[in-house]
This record gives sequence, C-alpha cells and structure tokens, in this order.
Amino acid sequence: MSSASAPPVDEISSLSLTPDTTTVEESEFSQRVLIRSIISRPDGGAGLAGQTVRVGGWVKTGRKQGNGTFAFLELNDGSCPANLQVIVDEAVGQLSQLVATGTCVHLEGELKVPPVEAKQRVELRVQKILDLGTVDPAKYPLPKTKLTLELLRDYVHLRPRTNTLMVTVTFCLCIQISAIARIRNALAYATHTFFQKHGFLYVHTPIITTSDCEGAGEMFQVTTLISDAEKLEKELIKNPPPSEADVEAAKLLVTEKGEAVSQLKSAKANKETITAAIAELTKAKESLSKLEERFKLKPGIPNKDGKIDYSQDFFARQAFLTVSGQLQVETFACALSSVYTFGPTFRAEHSHTSRHLAEFWMVEPEIAFADIQDDMNCAEAYVRFLCQWLLDNCLDDMEFMVKNYDKSAIDRLRMVSSTKFVRISYTEAVAILEEASKERQFENKVEWGIDLASEHERYLTEVKFKSPVILYNYPKGIKAFYMKVNPDNKTVAAMDVLVPKVGELIGGSQREERYEVIKERILEMGLPLEPYEWYLDLRRFGTVKHSGFGLGFERMILFATGLENIRDAIPFPRYPGRADL
Amino acid sequence: MSSASAPPVDEISSLSLTPDTTTVEESEFSQRVLIRSIISRPDGGAGLAGQTVRVGGWVKTGRKQGNGTFAFLELNDGSCPANLQVIVDEAVGQLSQLVATGTCVHLEGELKVPPVEAKQRVELRVQKILDLGTVDPAKYPLPKTKLTLELLRDYVHLRPRTNTLMVTVTFCLCIQISAIARIRNALAYATHTFFQKHGFLYVHTPIITTSDCEGAGEMFQVTTLISDAEKLEKELIKNPPPSEADVEAAKLLVTEKGEAVSQLKSAKANKETITAAIAELTKAKESLSKLEERFKLKPGIPNKDGKIDYSQDFFARQAFLTVSGQLQVETFACALSSVYTFGPTFRAEHSHTSRHLAEFWMVEPEIAFADIQDDMNCAEAYVRFLCQWLLDNCLDDMEFMVKNYDKSAIDRLRMVSSTKFVRISYTEAVAILEEASKERQFENKVEWGIDLASEHERYLTEVKFKSPVILYNYPKGIKAFYMKVNPDNKTVAAMDVLVPKVGELIGGSQREERYEVIKERILEMGLPLEPYEWYLDLRRFGTVKHSGFGLGFERMILFATGLENIRDAIPFPRYPGRADL
Repeated sequence: MSSASAPPVDEISSLSLTPDTTTVEESEFSQRVLIRSIISRPDGGAGLAGQTVRVGGWVKTGRKQGNGTFAFLELNDGSCPANLQVIVDEAVGQLSQLVATGTCVHLEGELKVPPVEAKQRVELRVQKILDLGTVDPAKYPLPKTKLTLELLRDYVHLRPRTNTLMVTVTFCLCIQISAIARIRNALAYATHTFFQKHGFLYVHTPIITTSDCEGAGEMFQVTTLISDAEKLEKELIKNPPPSEADVEAAKLLVTEKGEAVSQLKSAKANKETITAAIAELTKAKESLSKLEERFKLKPGIPNKDGKIDYSQDFFARQAFLTVSGQLQVETFACALSSVYTFGPTFRAEHSHTSRHLAEFWMVEPEIAFADIQDDMNCAEAYVRFLCQWLLDNCLDDMEFMVKNYDKSAIDRLRMVSSTKFVRISYTEAVAILEEASKERQFENKVEWGIDLASEHERYLTEVKFKSPVILYNYPKGIKAFYMKVNPDNKTVAAMDVLVPKVGELIGGSQREERYEVIKERILEMGLPLEPYEWYLDLRRFGTVKHSGFGLGFERMILFATGLENIRDAIPFPRYPGRADL
Repeated sequence: MSSASAPPVDEISSLSLTPDTTTVEESEFSQRVLIRSIISRPDGGAGLAGQTVRVGGWVKTGRKQGNGTFAFLELNDGSCPANLQVIVDEAVGQLSQLVATGTCVHLEGELKVPPVEAKQRVELRVQKILDLGTVDPAKYPLPKTKLTLELLRDYVHLRPRTNTLMVTVTFCLCIQISAIARIRNALAYATHTFFQKHGFLYVHTPIITTSDCEGAGEMFQVTTLISDAEKLEKELIKNPPPSEADVEAAKLLVTEKGEAVSQLKSAKANKETITAAIAELTKAKESLSKLEERFKLKPGIPNKDGKIDYSQDFFARQAFLTVSGQLQVETFACALSSVYTFGPTFRAEHSHTSRHLAEFWMVEPEIAFADIQDDMNCAEAYVRFLCQWLLDNCLDDMEFMVKNYDKSAIDRLRMVSSTKFVRISYTEAVAILEEASKERQFENKVEWGIDLASEHERYLTEVKFKSPVILYNYPKGIKAFYMKVNPDNKTVAAMDVLVPKVGELIGGSQREERYEVIKERILEMGLPLEPYEWYLDLRRFGTVKHSGFGLGFERMILFATGLENIRDAIPFPRYPGRADL
C-alpha cells in the first residue's frame, strides 16, 4: 500500500466505492468486495454487470424457488444497511444449507442485471461457494421472527447480526443494530476529525484514578486485594501457617543455639567448632523469622487500625474508575493549550433508567485562553459538525433509521446543522419557564436556584425555541467547585447545550483560574483540600483562563438515531446486574 | 463555522498555518494565534511582519536586558516544539513578573523581523499584556535546571510543561514531554484514519468485563462490595442494629396483638374496635419485619457458603477490567466484517520493568474473510502508514527527538515506511538463531518450541535482517487457544511483527473458526467451557474465517521516539504502587 500521503477525509466513505469505474476492487486485507462498493454506486451497481467478484456475508433471508432448483439469498456484510441479492443454482451447492438465516457464505460469482426490473439494480449469480458456515435453524437464537430490543440485550454477542425487529409490542418499529454501529463509528471519527482540524491534541486521560472529579460521584473501586486474599487463603489451606507452639519452639531453638555459641566462645573452643555453631544459630534464626512471617499471615483482606490497609493494594492506595477526564486533561490544557479526551467513564449508580449506563463514553475538550463565549462557540460548532458529518457520510443508515424507526431523525440533523443555537442565560430561561407554567403544568416547580429538570429543558428546546438552546450562567449553588464565579458572585460561568429529543447533550464551563477563589469554593463545598493540591498547583503556577465541556457520546447517538434506550446505543451495555461478555 | 464538507486529512496539520497568505488567523475557539501558525511557515513567519496578533503561552526562559529596560521571553503554547521570541518593554509591564519560567502570558503585539539576523525569523514586540499568571520561582517545582525523567514522574500534572531536561546522569540527553504528547496524538489520529480509509468500523469494546480473554491474565477486579460494606458499617455505627432481645420483644408484641384480635373477634366486639386492633397488629408485624431485616445486617463483605457473595456486587457477578477487546470485537467482525477497537487495557502484574504498564492502550483490528496472509498484509500496511504519517505530519517534533534524544529516530521511520517486511516462519527463525548462536552468546537457549526472548527478536530485526520482520506459524503449545491450528497439527497460524528498538510490536493470528477444534483446544488448555459458550456460538452459527492482531500503542511510541521507558510514553502512567491523579 502506498502511504505517501493521507487521503482526504471526505473521500473516506467512498474510498471503497470506486463509483466512476466499471470495475470494483477487492478489499486489500480480505478476500472479497464490500457489498457497499457494489450497491451504493449511483447506478445501484448495474454498471458492474459482467464482472466476476468474490463477496462474503451473512444470509438475512433465504428461500428456495423453482421447485428447489435454485435459491434467493439476501446477503449482508455489515458494510451498509442494504443487502445484496444472490442467486444460487442447485448445481453449485446444497441449497438447504444456504437458506437458513445467519448462514455465513463466501461466494464467487458474476454480477448481473436482474431479468425483471426489481428493487435491486444488480444481483450475484453464484459460480462457486468458497466457504460456508452453516446454521441449524432449530438452534439459532435469532431467527427471522421479530424480536424485541429488550430480548436482544440477552444476546449481545449475536445482536450485531440482527436485521429487522420489533422494538415495542404496540408499534411495529424496525431497527438494525448494525446501522447504529455504523452511525456510532461515524460520530467517533467525526469527533477526532473536528478537533484535529482545529488544532486540538488528543490526550488519553487515565481510566484508573485516585481523584474524584465531582467530589461526590458513586465510583467503582479497582482492587487486587480480594484476589490476593483469595490466593492467600488457598495457599494457607495447602500449606497451613505455623501454630504459636511452632513459633515458640523455634524461639527456644534460637536461644539454645545462641547459648551454645556463647559457651563455646567462653570455653575458647577451636575456630571450626565455633563457626559451625554460629552457622547453626544463623539457620535457626532464619527459620524463626520465616515462621514468624508466615505466622502473621491472616486470611482475608488486610486490615490496619480497624480499616482496610490499602497500602497492600496494587497502587498502594485506594483506586477507582474515572467519572470524568476533565481535571486530568486540564493539566495538559495548561501546557499544550487546546486538548481533548475521548474515553470511557464510569458511574456506579443503581439507576435502571433508559438514560443511564454504568460505563459510557465522553468527549471532553479543554481550551486555554478561552472564556465561556469561546466555549459555547466550540460546543455549537462541534455539534453542528457531527450532524453535517452524518448527513454527508451516513445518509443510507440515517434513511434506514427514518424509514424504520424515527421519521424525524434526518430533519433533526438538518435543523441542527443549519440553525444558529439560541443562547439565553439561566435567569432568562427561568423567567420563560415561569411564564409558561401559567399555561402548562410542569411536574417540577420552576424557581430561580433549582436545577432544571428534563421536562424544562425539553420545553425550551422543543416547544419554545424549536432549536438547540445554550443556557449559561447558572446559580453557583447547583454547580461544581471548579466553575468560574461570575462578578455577581451568585452565578458561575457554566453552560449547557440542550437539543430536541434528549435535552441536555453537553455541559461545560469556564474554569475558575483564581487560586484564592477556587480554594475557597473547595472548602465551601466541604471537600478536603489535600486531594486537590495538584489541581491547585495549576492555579498556583502560571495560571491561565480556560474553558471546556463534556459531551455524553451515547446521548449524541440517541439524538442522532432517535433510539429510546441508551442500552442500545453502546455495543456492550453495562448497568446494575448486567455486564455480559 | 461552515461544516458543509470535511477537510482533507492531509491538510489537517496545516489547517492553522495558512502559509500562503500574509496574515494569520486567530484560533476559532480561543483568543490567540497558534505559535505554530507563525513560526512553522516556510518563511519562518518573516512574511507576517507588521501584523498585530494575540498569542498565549508559558514562558520557557526569560531574561531582563538593557539594564532592565526590556525583557526577552521564550514563549511556548504547546502547538509545536519551537518557542516564539517575545520582547517586552518595561513600559508595558512589570518585567520581573514575566521572566520566571512557567509564567503564563496572554499578549498582544506586533510581529517584527529581528534587527540582527538570528535563529528566529520573526519576533513579537509586545504592546499589551492581556492576562498574566505569575510564578513564584522559589516555589515552582519545575525550574529551568535540568530534571530527570524519573523525577518528573512525581509531577505528572506539571510535566507536560517541561522543556529540556536530562534523562540520565551520564548522558546529557534532552526531551520534551509535550513533543511526545504531539507524537502520540498524531499516531492516534493516523490509526483511525488508516482503518476508516480501509472500511473498518470502530467498535467500543467493554472496559468492564466478565470474560478473561487469555484465560490466565492477572486482572484488576471492579467492585462496589467494599464501599457498600463501608457504607453499611458507618450506618450501623450511627444507627445500631437491634439486639436479639429487641427482636424477641417485637415478636412477643405481635403475639399479644394477635391474641387481642382473636379475643375481640370471638367476643364479637364491634367493627371499629376489631379494625383498630388489626391495625395495631399490622403495625407490630411491620415493625418486627423491619427489625428482623436489620438484625440480619452484618458488617463486612457479604458471604455465602464461606465465599464472597458476588450476587450482591454491582453487576451481580464478579467483574474485571479488560485485558484485551479481541474476543468481544470478534462478535462484531462476525457480523460487520472489518472492525477495530482502540481502547485502554489492563494487567495487574507486579512488574517493575521499563516495558510494562498496568494501564495501556491497544489497537485491535479484526477482519472477516481474512486469513493469516491478509492479516500480515494489514499489519504491515498499518505500521508503514503510521511511520509515513509521522514523517508527513510531525516532522518538527521528530527532528526535536533526533536532535535531543535519539539520533536514529527519523531514519528508523524512513526505513520502516519504505521497506517491505521480511516474512519467515518460526521454524526458519529458530534455524537462523541456532546458526547464530554458534557465534554469539544468547542469554536464553534457542530450540524449537520455546517462546522467543526479546534478545532473539531483536537479533532477527536489528542484526540479521536490519528490517522489520514478521514471524508466523508458531508452535501451538506456546500460543492461545483461539489461534487456528495448521494442517501440520503442530503449529498455529499466529504471527508477530518485530521491529528494531522494541522487538515485538504486534501479535496476531488467524482465529480458529472450526467449532469442534476450538472446543477441543479450550479443554486441552484446562479452561472451563461455560464462560466461552458465547464465543463458541460465533462458531456454532454461521462461522467465518477471520483474523486479527493487536498493537501495543505505547510500544509504537517507544519505537517512533526512541524513548527508553514506557512510563514516559503515556500521559498518566499506572504501575505497581503508583496511580497519581
């Protein structure tokens, strides 16, 4: 492969398509042509008729026809939502082995224009079956019949193969897990492209952390204490520790051997005799110290002063899974100026809602020399870039979602990518909501100082403005210690981006860069100073005005696809009671 | 920002440079021009003379001149390794506040060509200090004096700001943590670009897992049992559990209240009286059941049959941090064909070497319809792409590394990007090493069947072939259960990519896709079948030939930069006894 220069980003989705030629190339690292590169051509692949190709994929539906003389297969290889129609003659292979849903085939054949004008502009007439992975339909857990998304979560290892299925009992909606996977992939690459384009450096913040960003998060603990204790317990069963009597006997031996040495010395015995006695004493001492060490071994997790002794843990202190990379990425912003992190974050909350995961991905940029206005500009540009990227690079999958799941998904992307976001202060928003509550009933009462509820946020973005909305300058009492206190001393320079369908998509702020002020805020919130000393150092030495925000990546997927449950927006959902695979 | 179409990838590094105009633009989301966009222009920025700009950054060195009438500052903002020279007049600001290393300044001034031809082609004459973050040099932990990389690991929150420093006592080598950060960033984006370009989908495999990929890894446990136990303990101290006597008394009360009801009923008392008595009975019963529940609460980690009761843990089972995303990403390869994962992985090994981290990042592609040859083609193309990318996009940082740290770093990249990798079988490699050991002494004896040591790998790539080498077809006894057994039944279709400087950079294999064979291999290795049932399902239903590999991302950084210790290749290193921040 020639790698002399990188390809333009906007050619990436079409790199395998070669739409302007009458041939199609095999993928460089697998022995097949991507189905997308055939049927996503402007001519639907008709121009490729006559070419012999190899394709591979999984049978979505298959049926024998013409009294069993040939079979039709709908073949999908995950490269696009559409299937390739394949015709196999009984002379080529055993048709009953091919038609079962889930069967994997690797085929060689000729592309042909269907005899009768059909939905397909091209189909494959198979000449040779190169490889076959059969399915016993009686045992396959995912048959053609319609399944619910809920049920599919019990088959996370097979659900990427799913085609159309019911998502609720009452509505006949359809969805494809693979379409969501492609949309997720596109949003991830769009994220990197956006920030790289704007000179941001990607920083891998730590997953295992000894800091608690928010000071109040429910965190997962990371430890080797339990497995070490289990190992020790097994070892002690196999090889029991000495009794107190064993230790006493060993002590006695040391005393005896010591006395023997003294006696020999005072008796001026010969050198060899004394040396031999000293050797025996040394041996006795070593044996005692080993026994004493093993005697101290206690099964169970090590304790000290009635508390768990974390000095024995892997990191010699208590460690957790990160809830946010923000504080750590700030150390890089305060040196490299524009940075971002994009990685997994964790909350050990026992919440069973359709909006929470125990493991989810966050995008967190952090910008030096930027105030809250710059921060809002960046957030708006980023969200609009993501929407436009899906329209440019994932339209087939988005059309699939519109057709089968959420009619307004593409309209929503178009609206956001082309609309300037409304920006109003929290105080203005509360006034609007108070006015609105004269006419409509909110479940949660609105008044200045409250944390807005989802219903309020959605009213603003979906009803009042019908547009994305950025709220800024929140009451300091409901926000984190690191947010910059405004001159009014009542609000902080925080901002949230609200979008239709999901409400809050982004939360961010200008950071408090004044040492005295942030120290005061930490104490005010009843947090200890010691764990934040390194964070305070960023303000002590060469402090800089800076701002940043966080976008919940799965929320962005809900927004883009219209999915209802966040557990379907991530390949391997983790929530209370479930961590399959 | 217009986001109608994505920019070409190869323009990304130059997006902020605008090298063909005589003006330079401020970054869209922060109030300053990137220093890179000034001094990385072909003319070194001389063409921008006369323009007024805002810049921000940290003072690397500063000195007063002309009897304290002006100061020279070397300013770095992290956008490139070079500094911008800045001249401040005493009329503009208090010079002694500006010259301390680490000081952050946000400045407005005019770009000028230096009066005397100097290293710099352009310098900034400051007109206004917009913002200032001072440093007390007496307290700043990172002064201009030379520090060791070892010492710097105690200041992970400040080390991104470091400029030149000694890395060993004997050699006067210099390094810049920020250069490594930019190289790491470039390699991450190059990774995504390579795989996207080739039609691979990025899949986020889980971090928290209930599977053990290798079957023998030292894994970190993820749990809420300890914090739950601590919470309970605190609660029980605050609000002690009932005594047995309390429970007995409550039981007695229930009996009494029950008898009272019976008596009233048999005495045919009036309805209200009976109802009131029943209400009292119900209350007594509720109170008893609450007491009984609290009576059962035991401090400590929940046990059942002498073992820890993991049904009480967050995921209702034992959970760990992943050691590899491979097995999980295979579920997506067996549906979407070409996929990759790029995420953090973890090993709880107590190893204190310069080659091991407890938390590190891995790139793991997985390709359906691909055999071991395709796998090697992909690995080779990927590594060469990464090298070429650094030459195209990070040359200034690479030149910095060459000048200050590793003379051969650029030559190594050039060699790998332009050389076809040597491919030989393990058996051939052993023959070569046996021949070589007649003339040179290896620490580890070579014979067919052993796992090659680092010295053997480095001999092959550095001495024998002076080129990257791919070894394939390893003895099955030293490889994992999921690797495809070759027809000789002695070897498996595994491959390792060896490169100069680090030895093994990539390990991969064709996967065993035959259900009966892989099941046999799992049992042969003494592993239980049950945890792998989902993995076996991929072979049971529509199995497919597939291959993949893993690249240790930090190893790639060692290879590219010539760094000696892997702890300096990751922003926040985690190893036994250390997890700062």
